Amino acid sequence: MRISQLSAASGVPIPTIKYYLREGLLPAGEQTSATRAEYGERHLRRLRLIRALLEVGHLSIAAIRKVVAAVEDEGMDLHLVLGTAHYAISPPVEAHPDDAEWRRARAEADRLVADLGWQVDAAAPARDELAQAVLTLDRLGLPATGDALRPYAEAAMRLVSEHEIRTIPADRTREEAVEALVVGTVVKGRVLDVMRRLAQESVSARTFGAAPRS
Amino acid sequence: MRISQLSAASGVPIPTIKYYLREGLLPAGEQTSATRAEYGERHLRRLRLIRALLEVGHLSIAAIRKVVAAVEDEGMDLHLVLGTAHYAISPPVEAHPDDAEWRRARAEADRLVADLGWQVDAAAPARDELAQAVLTLDRLGLPATGDALRPYAEAAMRLVSEHEIRTIPADRTREEAVEALVVGTVVKGRVLDVMRRLAQESVSARTFGAAPRS
Repeated sequence: MRISQLSAASGVPIPTIKYYLREGLLPAGEQTSATRAEYGERHLRRLRLIRALLEVGHLSIAAIRKVVAAVEDEGMDLHLVLGTAHYAISPPVEAHPDDAEWRRARAEADRLVADLGWQVDAAAPARDELAQAVLTLDRLGLPATGDALRPYAEAAMRLVSEHEIRTIPADRTREEAVEALVVGTVVKGRVLDVMRRLAQESVSARTFGAAPRS
Repeated sequence: MRISQLSAASGVPIPTIKYYLREGLLPAGEQTSATRAEYGERHLRRLRLIRALLEVGHLSIAAIRKVVAAVEDEGMDLHLVLGTAHYAISPPVEAHPDDAEWRRARAEADRLVADLGWQVDAAAPARDELAQAVLTLDRLGLPATGDALRPYAEAAMRLVSEHEIRTIPADRTREEAVEALVVGTVVKGRVLDVMRRLAQESVSARTFGAAPRS
């Protein structure tokens, strides 16, 4: 299809498509004449992926370029490609390796991951996020050890291993697997958070409430 | 204790304590002379609660005043007090009742809550949050019906009913129950989110990866 058709099929305006081509996010079409190029299914898939990374992952163009490079690097196994996208969408956390309190919290986070027997890279940004939560609980004088956090680890692992892993289409293209991962991680993370607060309200109503509120 | 001792015991500076007194967030001490007032345990507890609402819940002073008013209103049962705090810390979502697409998403969210049999107020802000997630999934062409979201509802309910409800100290003061709810909802929500991403990495490594990354 021509660029106008690619635009119509994807809903992405032509100037935006040209911008993605210049930035190297979208591979060039097949040149059929000096002024005309043909685009195909893979361009449509790539545009869907870019949209998910932008609108759901809130990634910068530079971060999208890194994810796209991983998708295109056929020497990278799927776990590494997914990991690149996963790290890119992690909320940024400021580590404080010079601070003794921070180092203790990070050590506690690492011990927790080790005790769970999970296979997580030493450089995974989520380790710092966990350290940040441990630090907050500590400062409020609340328990932040394995016993207090294990129910959350178990609930998360059950959800991921019994359900979420099956939603990554490993048999489809790498674009589709990454798109499913990004949307799944971000939007379904919001779903889990809101479901938890709805469940809290319901359980609180039944435990502490006299009658329904309305 | 005197205001200087209250400051030392709570870690809150005297000018901040005076500000909370003026704003009505902290009840007045017992006046023992024209220039001296006595403060006690309840003032300490209240300062802890204000700190949790500010630092963890990121509430405004106006929102804290509402939560404090609920804590002080002995005619309100604990479920309503907890609900007031719970709604105050919900992330704001813009509802679009004039938009047909939004109304469909909100109806889907309400149907899901009804199908689950959960006791949730019709005005709960989490219903709009769920509608927002449904809308995002819809727009990306992904399933957003009960079947797709039920695993998240079930994981959340199991965690809340088997674990979290026991962490609300219903036998202590209302201040302590609300503080536990706010910290539990916000910080443990972050813990659940990060545990899920750590679990995803571990399961991905075992499913799609060749060897550990480092």
